[in-house]
Amino acid sequence: MDKLTIVKVGGKIVEDEASLKQLLEDFVQIAGYKLLVHGGGRKATDISEKLGIETKMVDGRRITDEETLKVVTMVYAGLVNKNIVAKLQALDKNAFGLCGADFNLIRSVKRPVKEIDYGFVGDVAEVQPDILNSLIEQNIIPVVAPITHDMKGTLLNTNADTIANEVAKAMADHFEVHLIFCFEKLGVLSNPDDETSVIEEINREDYLRYKEEGVIQGGMIPKLDNAFNAIDCGVSEVVITRADNLISGGGTHIIR
Amino acid sequence: MDKLTIVKVGGKIVEDEASLKQLLEDFVQIAGYKLLVHGGGRKATDISEKLGIETKMVDGRRITDEETLKVVTMVYAGLVNKNIVAKLQALDKNAFGLCGADFNLIRSVKRPVKEIDYGFVGDVAEVQPDILNSLIEQNIIPVVAPITHDMKGTLLNTNADTIANEVAKAMADHFEVHLIFCFEKLGVLSNPDDETSVIEEINREDYLRYKEEGVIQGGMIPKLDNAFNAIDCGVSEVVITRADNLISGGGTHIIR
Repeated sequence: MDKLTIVKVGGKIVEDEASLKQLLEDFVQIAGYKLLVHGGGRKATDISEKLGIETKMVDGRRITDEETLKVVTMVYAGLVNKNIVAKLQALDKNAFGLCGADFNLIRSVKRPVKEIDYGFVGDVAEVQPDILNSLIEQNIIPVVAPITHDMKGTLLNTNADTIANEVAKAMADHFEVHLIFCFEKLGVLSNPDDETSVIEEINREDYLRYKEEGVIQGGMIPKLDNAFNAIDCGVSEVVITRADNLISGGGTHIIR
Repeated sequence: MDKLTIVKVGGKIVEDEASLKQLLEDFVQIAGYKLLVHGGGRKATDISEKLGIETKMVDGRRITDEETLKVVTMVYAGLVNKNIVAKLQALDKNAFGLCGADFNLIRSVKRPVKEIDYGFVGDVAEVQPDILNSLIEQNIIPVVAPITHDMKGTLLNTNADTIANEVAKAMADHFEVHLIFCFEKLGVLSNPDDETSVIEEINREDYLRYKEEGVIQGGMIPKLDNAFNAIDCGVSEVVITRADNLISGGGTHIIR
C-alpha cells in the first residue's frame, strides 16, 4: 500500500499568515501522498463578535446556534480553507479544499440533546473516501475543513480532531496511513514541567501504565484514546507533535 | 461527445432559501451531466456592513479591497457554496463545491490599475478543466464559486458570468456544452416594455440586425457579446432565461 500522511493543524496556526506559510512549506516536504485537516479557531469567534452574535460556551464547548453555524461555515470552509489551497498552489502543489458535504465525504448526525443542546454540531456517522482516494492518487492534496452534513441539507460543525481520526480510519483500507496531530507541545510529556521530556514512542501497554502512574492525565487522555482507536482501526501510526516540528520526525509516536 | 449543461445563477436566487430550493429541484431534473456556477450577491454587502467594512463602488462596480476580499471568500466560497452542496446531497446528487483555486481550475491575473484600481479583482487567464471533466464523468456535480487565484497565493474576486463563460469554453473540447444564464427576465426581449416578447432563437446575423435596429441595447449587449464569444469557442448553445423557467426549454437560445 502507498503511504498517506494526514496532518491535522489547529486554527491558531492556519489563521496567522507567518505560521501558516511555515507550516505549508514544511507540509509539502513530506514524502508521498498527503492530506491536511485544519481546525477553525479564534477568527470565527472574532467575526461572530463583530456581527453581534453571542458566543455561548457550556463546559468549555462552543454552542453552535444557527447564526454561529453560518459564521463557522464561512470562516472554516471559505476563508481559511481557500486561503490554504491558494497557498499550496503557489508552492506548486495541486490542492483542493472541501468539507464533509463535498463528495458526501462525511455524513454526520446532529448531536442528540441530553443535558446540553450543542445546537448544529455533528457527530460523524459515515466517511466515504473513495473519490478522495482516487484524487490523492493523482497527486492532489485534499484540504479538509471541519464542517460536515446530515444528508438532509443541513451543515454541521464538527471537531477537527475527530474528522482527522475518522478520515484516517476510513482511508486505512486503501493507504498506509500516518496521522500527525499538531498541537502546542512537542509531544506527550513524561514530566509536564519539562517541555523536553517527550515520550518518543508509546504502545497501548505503555499508555495504560503511564495512565496508572499518573504520568499521562487530563486533556492528553482523550487525545490518546482517539489515537489508539485509530491504531486499532488500521492506521499505521499516530504522531502527536508541534507544528514547527512537523518534518523532524520528532514528537510522540503512537504505535500498535 | 456527452452533453454537459452549465447553469449560472445569480446571488439573489441562491441566497433565498425558498428560491434556492426550487432552483436546485429544477436543476437536478436536467438530463445528463451538470455544473453549477453561482454568483455572490447582497449577502456579502450585508456582512461587510455589519463588519464595518465600507462597500466602495466606482461606476456601479464593487472595489475589492483586502477586507472585502475576505468577506466575498467567506460568503461565496464558504456559506453560499457549501449550502448549495449540502442541498444537492439532500436531493441525492453527489456534488462538491470549489473555487478557481481548487485543482487550479481558474488562474487569473489581478486587474491592472488604469484609471480605477478595482483591488483584488481577477481577470481569467487560464482554465484547467481536466480533473473536473473526469469528476463530471463520474456523475458528480461541481458547484463553482466566483473566486479565482493568481497561482502566487492570492485569491481574487471574479465575475460569475465570466467564470461560467470561460469554464464552458474550456470544457467544450470534451463535452457538448450547453450554457444557461439565469437572470431576472424570461429572455432577450424584442420589446423591452413587453415581458413576454422573448426572442426564442438568435444567431449572430440576427443579433447584429437587432443591435442596429436598437431592439437590443444597454446591458444586453455585453451579455450577448459574451454568449457569441462562447459559441465561437465551441460551446454548442447559450440560453438566457429566468431561473424559474430553467427546465421549460424557454428563454432565448443563442446559436451559431
